[in-house]
Amino acid sequence: MPIEEHLFDKLRIELRRGALSLGVLIALREERYGYTLRQVLEAGGLPIEEGALYPLLRRLEAQGLLTSEWREEGRNKRFYRLSDDGERVLAQLLSEWDAISRSIVRLSEGNQ
Amino acid sequence: MPIEEHLFDKLRIELRRGALSLGVLIALREERYGYTLRQVLEAGGLPIEEGALYPLLRRLEAQGLLTSEWREEGRNKRFYRLSDDGERVLAQLLSEWDAISRSIVRLSEGNQ
Repeated sequence: MPIEEHLFDKLRIELRRGALSLGVLIALREERYGYTLRQVLEAGGLPIEEGALYPLLRRLEAQGLLTSEWREEGRNKRFYRLSDDGERVLAQLLSEWDAISRSIVRLSEGNQ
Repeated sequence: MPIEEHLFDKLRIELRRGALSLGVLIALREERYGYTLRQVLEAGGLPIEEGALYPLLRRLEAQGLLTSEWREEGRNKRFYRLSDDGERVLAQLLSEWDAISRSIVRLSEGNQ
């Protein structure tokens, strides 16, 4: 891999990391299990590997932003959804996201 | 600090981290030294502590995205600017940023 491409990938991952947590919280306003959550994120343009999604879900649940529940539907599945704290944190993060986006636009316009 | 506020701060920092690298690269399309760079970022809405800026600048320079030079202007100052590789990586990151922003909007609209 050329060095420039490798660098781009590192910065790209850094850029996506925060957005992915945000995307997961948004998608879990509605209850979903892992597979459908991945489908929603992928359709939205934020694909995530299974190996990355489950640790992220565990972390967000440990932080109290999600609740989860095993339920039998054909076979057992763990369903996730936003907690009340999650709702409040998500609202704050969305306005933070807006502020960051406006900052990037403002800096770009001032530094062509 | 209430737990919810603490959580929000953690996620907020994660969200800002990628954007900050992007903001620094944008601002260094024009040559600047640390102090004026911080002023531009702060005016743009992405304030950064000195203690965080210099490690970030060193990292971006080690990655070949910036060049820097000591120069005497009154007292010695280190001036930074985007390298040619940095220009190319920045262009890719900006289109990545657009894609991520569109994803967040798309997910928000589909998951009210």
